[in-house]
Amino acid sequence: MRNLIDIRDMTVEEIDRMLDLADRIFEHPEQYRDTANHKTLATLFFEPSTRTRLSFEAAMLELGGRILGFSSAASSSATKGESVADTVAVVSGYCDIIAMRHPKEGAPVVAARHATVPVINAGDGGHNHPTQTLTDLMTIRREKGRLCDMNIGLCGDLQFGRTVHSLIAAMSRSPGIRFSLISPDELCIPDYVREILTERGCDFVEIGSMEEVMPTLDVLYMTRVQKERFFNEADYIRLKDSYILDPAKLSRAKDDLCVMHPLPRVNEISTLVDNDPRACYFKQARYGKYVRMALILTLLELVKEG
Amino acid sequence: MRNLIDIRDMTVEEIDRMLDLADRIFEHPEQYRDTANHKTLATLFFEPSTRTRLSFEAAMLELGGRILGFSSAASSSATKGESVADTVAVVSGYCDIIAMRHPKEGAPVVAARHATVPVINAGDGGHNHPTQTLTDLMTIRREKGRLCDMNIGLCGDLQFGRTVHSLIAAMSRSPGIRFSLISPDELCIPDYVREILTERGCDFVEIGSMEEVMPTLDVLYMTRVQKERFFNEADYIRLKDSYILDPAKLSRAKDDLCVMHPLPRVNEISTLVDNDPRACYFKQARYGKYVRMALILTLLELVKEG
Amino acid sequence: MRNLIDIRDMTVEEIDRMLDLADRIFEHPEQYRDTANHKTLATLFFEPSTRTRLSFEAAMLELGGRILGFSSAASSSATKGESVADTVAVVSGYCDIIAMRHPKEGAPVVAARHATVPVINAGDGGHNHPTQTLTDLMTIRREKGRLCDMNIGLCGDLQFGRTVHSLIAAMSRSPGIRFSLISPDELCIPDYVREILTERGCDFVEIGSMEEVMPTLDVLYMTRVQKERFFNEADYIRLKDSYILDPAKLSRAKDDLCVMHPLPRVNEISTLVDNDPRACYFKQARYGKYVRMALILTLLELVKEG
Repeated sequence: MRNLIDIRDMTVEEIDRMLDLADRIFEHPEQYRDTANHKTLATLFFEPSTRTRLSFEAAMLELGGRILGFSSAASSSATKGESVADTVAVVSGYCDIIAMRHPKEGAPVVAARHATVPVINAGDGGHNHPTQTLTDLMTIRREKGRLCDMNIGLCGDLQFGRTVHSLIAAMSRSPGIRFSLISPDELCIPDYVREILTERGCDFVEIGSMEEVMPTLDVLYMTRVQKERFFNEADYIRLKDSYILDPAKLSRAKDDLCVMHPLPRVNEISTLVDNDPRACYFKQARYGKYVRMALILTLLELVKEG
Repeated sequence: MRNLIDIRDMTVEEIDRMLDLADRIFEHPEQYRDTANHKTLATLFFEPSTRTRLSFEAAMLELGGRILGFSSAASSSATKGESVADTVAVVSGYCDIIAMRHPKEGAPVVAARHATVPVINAGDGGHNHPTQTLTDLMTIRREKGRLCDMNIGLCGDLQFGRTVHSLIAAMSRSPGIRFSLISPDELCIPDYVREILTERGCDFVEIGSMEEVMPTLDVLYMTRVQKERFFNEADYIRLKDSYILDPAKLSRAKDDLCVMHPLPRVNEISTLVDNDPRACYFKQARYGKYVRMALILTLLELVKEG
Repeated sequence: MRNLIDIRDMTVEEIDRMLDLADRIFEHPEQYRDTANHKTLATLFFEPSTRTRLSFEAAMLELGGRILGFSSAASSSATKGESVADTVAVVSGYCDIIAMRHPKEGAPVVAARHATVPVINAGDGGHNHPTQTLTDLMTIRREKGRLCDMNIGLCGDLQFGRTVHSLIAAMSRSPGIRFSLISPDELCIPDYVREILTERGCDFVEIGSMEEVMPTLDVLYMTRVQKERFFNEADYIRLKDSYILDPAKLSRAKDDLCVMHPLPRVNEISTLVDNDPRACYFKQARYGKYVRMALILTLLELVKEG
């Protein structure tokens, strides 16, 4: 593994090994704080994303490495018409590893082809965001103690939410997973995801509200429902409350439910839920740093025996 | 003390201790250059401010620490509708201390409530900017050798200038301070500041030009008079020269006057004054770094015995 | 040498010494990786330039130093009307050396006058970009083994291209250089460059296409021809292909031709040329880091005996 462009490029075993390493770093960060000394991470963010960028930068700094880069296309040579391929070819000379976010699907593949250092896809226009998926998997494994045999609810925009598709694709490889896909009809999972589930013989239901399945869930993954996705305002107003998690809805859930969200959140989880011990989304953001530390060490081939 | 949101949260003794530490760092920076090793400062600047941001970053770097963050809201998740509370909850997982600047008054209070690391208010929309006040106090104490028994002139926009209000509030606690408040009528100090002065029995005059009091001053704190603050253009043109410090006006001042300015300056101090030994504003900017080093060490509880 | 504002401020001997140092760092980077420990570079970029900024930042980090700064005027106090002189006077207190890019010609000279630390001109509106010239010279010397006795073609916009003028000025001091100046009439070298060439008795030809001279060239320096520079669209369309380097044109060149470009490139070198061993422009970008490392060490007076 030299680059990470798409989570599907990783085998189940590679993912397990990555999460094992992330766990070890999480538990003994001081043992890893000089592992990337004298190495530099370039964060090339052609569109802004605080959370992801800062998470990568914190990861590299806490490994003893250094960071440079840009946080929006406006600060880059892209404004002068330079191609991603050229930017990456040049920046390869200034760093040891690249994390790139780009509004165009496929840009990280082009980048990986022209870079002379490992490239991590930190999100490309609507399709892949593999470090988010690794973060989600680490969160589930740490919070539930396993990646199999559980009921997972995914709620909100299941059509356009790239993190949801990747998570379904990754988890559907595990045995004993049952998915509850909670969304308005307009925003149900696309056919290609339904095909993955069917092919792999996964148990899943598609439903319009979360109340019914709530008592059965082990994990509830919330996503944002954007107003613009609806065909008309009336539908939006009628439906939106169904996809907002609040203490009332949560009252019927299991005591050990794990509530997740890729963040940023707007209003799809009431802030009244934040102090509930089942709210795991801020922990999830924190785990993201450790997963990225594990990934950087792995791609730089700096991993110590665990 | 876990956060610094408002200078009024600090007792006189806490301020003295902070300035003592800043002085020690200023005099022996090499003794402090590894005190924040393996610690990370996040600078979350929701509005741009070179001076303040770079000052914080330099402070952290010179303590051996690391920095990450963003320099404008456009590069942050705020563009996606994320609340300050959520941003700070997430970023808490990526750093050990946060310095935040925000155009909305009160945002740092919200931040402090949701952060799991110390938060420093690096300026919020028009009200508080406590590290500027600490910088001002360090400057006066170093340049005059004391924080009491002196005549302080404050000149320019005394109505909207937040740094002026904080400085008056802080200095009015010291004995023997006499304030000369020099401004156009439209921009005189607000009632709440006048009340502080009256309550504490402070000696002060409000006047329209600096010439008269110049020979009596020990400190002259200049601020910018913005054209937009005036009711009409005619008033602005008639009055503006009264609030510009130039060598002619300075010729009647004491030899050991300390001329200060929070910067950035536009034209309210003639550049002809820059080489006068009484011009302390660039020194003042420099002291700001040491005060911030002292503050970071204090909030991180890394202070060595002095 | 305390600042680097204009490549003409450096003697031939100073340039040689700088390139010698850059070569040593290139060959033994590990010997230099802690030479700038505890030193800080401020990158003050009043206009964006990924390549140059990241190159400076990588240079400082790989010397063990630290970086801070801003990447566009929008993130700086310039938006509040602060002068370059004041910005630099303040930032001098936060760093040990400054690299500044500014859209206004002459801004770095002003900066150098008001800074209390060394200032490097990282490009000013259309006139000087001395670290690009040092990069070009290092590239030629490393790739050709010498800086004299060769045929250099310069192709494209020779009128407005600042890097071209500086390179001609620098190389025309060496013996045995013959220049082929390839451009449309509208974009030929300005009179002042022609005068330099004439005064120094340099051999040069001005021609409209590269085919004829291609077989004679040792170095071919390509630059971008911007559509806006042409008087009319018809001329542009008729001429533009003449100034695009492609494999067909390259087929008649020497086997050891060194093709250079200051980058970013738009389409003036076909990407089909990228894998040709004669394509040196990505190497050139890489050398730029080492030249900047040498420059930083020299200006900070940290150079070890070679």
